[in-house]
Formats: sequence, structure tokens, C-alpha cells
Amino acid sequence: MNLQQTIRNIKNLDEMAMTAARARQESLTKPSGSLGRLEDISVQLAGILGQPVPSVRRKTIILAAGDHGVAAEGVSAYPQEVTGQMVLNFLHGGAGINVLARHAGAEVIVVDAGVASELPSDAALRCAKVRNGATGNIARGPAMSREEAVKLLECGIVLAEEQASRGADLIGTGDMGIANTTPSSAIVAVMTGHPPEKVVGRGTGLARKAWLHKVQIVRQAIETNRPDSSDALGVLAGVGGFEIALLAGVMLGTAARRRAVVLDGFISGAAALIAHGLCPAIQPYFLAAHLSAEPGHRLTMAHLRLKPLLDLNLRLGEGTGAALAMGLIEAAARCLAEMATFGEAGVSEKT
Amino acid sequence: MNLQQTIRNIKNLDEMAMTAARARQESLTKPSGSLGRLEDISVQLAGILGQPVPSVRRKTIILAAGDHGVAAEGVSAYPQEVTGQMVLNFLHGGAGINVLARHAGAEVIVVDAGVASELPSDAALRCAKVRNGATGNIARGPAMSREEAVKLLECGIVLAEEQASRGADLIGTGDMGIANTTPSSAIVAVMTGHPPEKVVGRGTGLARKAWLHKVQIVRQAIETNRPDSSDALGVLAGVGGFEIALLAGVMLGTAARRRAVVLDGFISGAAALIAHGLCPAIQPYFLAAHLSAEPGHRLTMAHLRLKPLLDLNLRLGEGTGAALAMGLIEAAARCLAEMATFGEAGVSEKT
Repeated sequence: MNLQQTIRNIKNLDEMAMTAARARQESLTKPSGSLGRLEDISVQLAGILGQPVPSVRRKTIILAAGDHGVAAEGVSAYPQEVTGQMVLNFLHGGAGINVLARHAGAEVIVVDAGVASELPSDAALRCAKVRNGATGNIARGPAMSREEAVKLLECGIVLAEEQASRGADLIGTGDMGIANTTPSSAIVAVMTGHPPEKVVGRGTGLARKAWLHKVQIVRQAIETNRPDSSDALGVLAGVGGFEIALLAGVMLGTAARRRAVVLDGFISGAAALIAHGLCPAIQPYFLAAHLSAEPGHRLTMAHLRLKPLLDLNLRLGEGTGAALAMGLIEAAARCLAEMATFGEAGVSEKT
Repeated sequence: MNLQQTIRNIKNLDEMAMTAARARQESLTKPSGSLGRLEDISVQLAGILGQPVPSVRRKTIILAAGDHGVAAEGVSAYPQEVTGQMVLNFLHGGAGINVLARHAGAEVIVVDAGVASELPSDAALRCAKVRNGATGNIARGPAMSREEAVKLLECGIVLAEEQASRGADLIGTGDMGIANTTPSSAIVAVMTGHPPEKVVGRGTGLARKAWLHKVQIVRQAIETNRPDSSDALGVLAGVGGFEIALLAGVMLGTAARRRAVVLDGFISGAAALIAHGLCPAIQPYFLAAHLSAEPGHRLTMAHLRLKPLLDLNLRLGEGTGAALAMGLIEAAARCLAEMATFGEAGVSEKT
């Protein structure tokens, strides 16, 4: 699907459905507002899906993996081959996201958006490669061309449309890519206007020296590529990553099909900044799953005016936070649909 | 079961199981600590259940309803008959807790701990009444006698033991009782040492006049009954409530049988302060489900050194927060049990 057409297809939420959902919330057997954010979520879902009493049919996590040339700068504690090894782990069902998706009743779609190591062929693995090998090293030049970025965005759109057509009402985003907090930090710094030292996380036990080095690499990536925050596609091509591009496309495709985007943590947040830069109207389609332990994520959430549902100090990625939050989002929809009204239950209202 | 014997049966967590759980977390295919609080919960569950790889069999919410003499002081916007009407709603499956328990795969046990209105007989309803009618009006005298408080605590212990014997590994607490934030506020004020005006919530749209009145009633309840925080049973009898007593008993019985107590919000927090006052060794058996919108709940959590899992602005009670959190707690256990290790998955470790 064409990127520009998809962006044009992202419309406002359905106000009539939201008004009806709000009215139904007031009729249910509980004090007004006592289900807190669950009530807000049910109303938002009504507006997204265009249903006064929204129901969640399928839940899908689109998990994109990609490698990063900037790994050569020594910004990650793990070797680059871990990206491909983890893709196999995803396909075999042994990773955190597999467990949490099973628990949530969600399906995981694993996408090779540009893994550097060779992967054995597997019918369950979706291939969305635009290049063999990792992105360009953003500390020395652009991650990819604008054309490659558009191709990946459009692959993400196609995947989202496919899942929407299969009945997925919640589409979560997940990432895997050794060193991908570095391009994500660069995107967050550019798009939110905060300096790299405020965005880059120290991680657990990331020594001061390693932290200073990572900040320096992010700064160098920005100085080298000179991304302009008003040109989100340029930011993505300059300092982004393959899986980040694909996920930004998933978000646009999901919103264009009026489904809810369940954002995972820091990397998904960076992709959301790109999607939002390309199409600000996407904002109400976002549900932020959790607040990542990465400090730049808080800045991302503030920029996107999103309040994460969970704050559990997660920093694994893969869509793990999104899978956990899907349980809460579905619970919110079920309360609106399944609770009895005061009238039905014969319960007295406020005096 | 005898109260004193139950208190003696509450032992320390199983350190060996916790050490083994921590070691297994380090071997799983994720950066160390990257599942944040899910990792901590899995280790705590290991210690509670005494299993290096804990698994959650059944999940139960014990939902106790009771009426409060202090409702006569006009502290609630709802008439007292709503307590009994909501018990029927619980039995018919139409309340918030029914929906959220279904979603979590948890069973709800509804207990009449002292509902003032007459309830039709129903085989699913547990009767733990020690008196016909509501508690005494705490603004004028004690809520109940010490003997009644002990009887209710012991009923709660029996219910917890029954559920533990049926394989419930997570036992959540839920409450229903018009005006029960007033005795709960009194308990929180006494047990934490904070003044009533810091504890009493304004609710949504609770006008300043209504708030001042409620603060005054809580103050009067404390002045009338002169509860002593070192005598938790006296606090419960003086300014407590029937359902609060029953839930404190459920907590003690759950911990004595080495099962996890999943605390709902403000009312459950007040019951937890009583259980903790009777037996400080219960603390590590608590998992706090959510931070209630009631300001006194934050003070309760600080006093009990607990960090709630969720913060969704809930203030419904019934065990709704506990049911939501059970999904996260089970997810934590499943990650520890089901994720592949680095060795199993052939994933390289940190360089």
C-alpha cells in the first residue's frame, strides 16, 4: 500500500461511538469514574474501532528485527549475531514475548526487517529486507536511503493491513536489534529536541565511560546526518533503523484501518515519533503500554502526549510490554460490554 | 482455625527457592533485569510458594460484603441498601469484579460478612455473619466487640484455608460496603499515624463541605473509640468493619498456608494494616495490586513498604484491582517457567 494514501486514510476517531460509550459507562453498576483509566480506554477503543461497545477480536504483536551498523562502535554489550539468534528463539517460542503473548492470547508475527546474519528459511518468518546486512553506521553516514525507508514503511503498512483483515483489533509493536537503543536515542533527541545526554539511558551497570561513549556516538550521528525534525522520513533514513522503519509503517497501517496501536517501550516510541512526524493525526490511535526504564522514553511519551498504562521497569523490548498491556485493554473493553447497568441489576443510584 | 495458631504458622519466605529463582532468571534469554518487576514478583512467588519455579494453579478473589452503622452520618452518596443489591449483582455475574475475574480466569467467592438488608438464600453465597444488621456507628461507639472481631478473623482464615486446599495459589481480597471508606480511613489514620484530613479522599466531585464532614466523622470515631495502634484487634473492633475483619482473616490464613495475598485497594489496605498489626511477618506474603485513587492508600502502601503493580486511578473496590494484577503476577511466573535459557536457545551471552 502506498505511504501517502495510507497517511490520507488516517481519520479522526468516531465521536458518536465515543459519546455512546461514555453514556454507557455512566449507566453501569459502579460509581461514576471508579474504573479510572479502564473507562478512558474503553471510550478510546470505541472511537478507534467505531463501535459504541467495542469488542476485541484478535490481538497481534508484529515483532520486527533488524541490525545496526552502529554496533561497530561498541555501543552494545551483546554481539551482533544475537539479533539473528533471538529471531530463532522467537520462532521456537522461547523468548519473553512468546510467553507473554501466549498469556495474553495474542499472536506473534516475526519479521526479518534486515537481520545481518543468515537465517534458515522458516515459513513463519516474514521477510521484509531491503538490503543484505545491517544499516549504515549512523555515526559515519546515513542508516539507509529515503527509498529504502519508504519501502520498509510500506512493508509495515501491508503487514498491518493483513492483520487487520484477519480481525486483529489490537496491533502491538515489538522490536529486536542489537544496538537499536542508539538510533532510537538519536531519533528521540531529534524529534523531541532534548540533548542526547538526557535521552541515553545508563542501563543497569552501564559504566560511566560506556555511557559517555554512547552519548558521544548519538551526538556524532546527529552531527553527521543533520536530521531535520520537520522531515520525519529524513530523520528515519538518516539516524533510524530497518525495524524502526517497519514498525512506523505498521503503526500507520493500523491507524488507517481504524485499529488500535499498542506501543511497546523505547524503540517503539522512537518509531511512533516517526509515524507521528509523518502523520500527526495518528496520535489518538496510540495506546502506550508501559513506561520503559530508558529515560528517553519518558520524553517520548510527553512529546506524544501519551500516558503509559504500566510502569514495571521493563526494558526488554520484543513487544513484551505491549503483550502485558493488551490484557488490560481487553479488560477495559469487557467491563464496558459485560457489566450490568443499574437498571438491569436493580441497584439504587446516587441519592 | 484458631487466630493465634494461624499467626504462629506464618513463617519466613523460602530463601532457597528464591535463590534458585534468581539464578534461573539470570540464565533466561534476556538482558539481566530487563523484565523489571516481573522478575522480582517471580522471585517473591518462589519464596511464598516454596517452589524454585513457581506455577500458579488456581486464582481466587474472596469478596466480603458488610454494612456500616456510620452510614447514618451521611458519609456516602449511596443508600445502605446498595450493599445487598450489589451482593446480588455479584452472584448474578454483572459487577465489575465478575467481568475482571472472568478475564483473569479467577473464581469469585462472595461472603456475607454482615450485610444489613435481608438477602435471598443462594447456595453460592457464604455466610459469615456475627450479628444481624450493620456495625455500630463508629462515630458514637465501637463497630463491634473484640469477640465478634476474632470470630470474623477466624471465618476469614477458614475461607482462605479452604481455597488454599482447593489449589488457589493467588488469593485476592475484595470488599463491598456502603460507607466503608470511613472506617478504613479511621484505621489508616490510627495505624499509620497520619491525621484524618491527609487520609480522607475527596472523591470525584465530593464537595468541600462533604469532605469536611467525612474528616470530622473519622476524627470523631477516633476520639470516641481511642484506638491504640499497638492493639490491632482493638483498632479493628473500635473503628473497623465486618468485611474488613473478614478480609484481615483471609490474609492471615493465606499467608499461614504459604499462598500469595493479592491486595486490592483502599479497603483491603486497611485490612492489611490490621493483619500486619496482628502479625508483622505477613508483609512478604503481600502483593499490592494497584494504587487506589484514595489518598490514604498511598500512606498505607508506604507504611507496609509495598509498591503497587498498577496505577490506573481505580477506586471501585470489589477486588477489581486484584483481578487485574493477577494477570501480571501469573505472567511473571510464566516468564520464569517458560522462557528458554541462553544455553537452550543457542543465544550468545554478554561479551
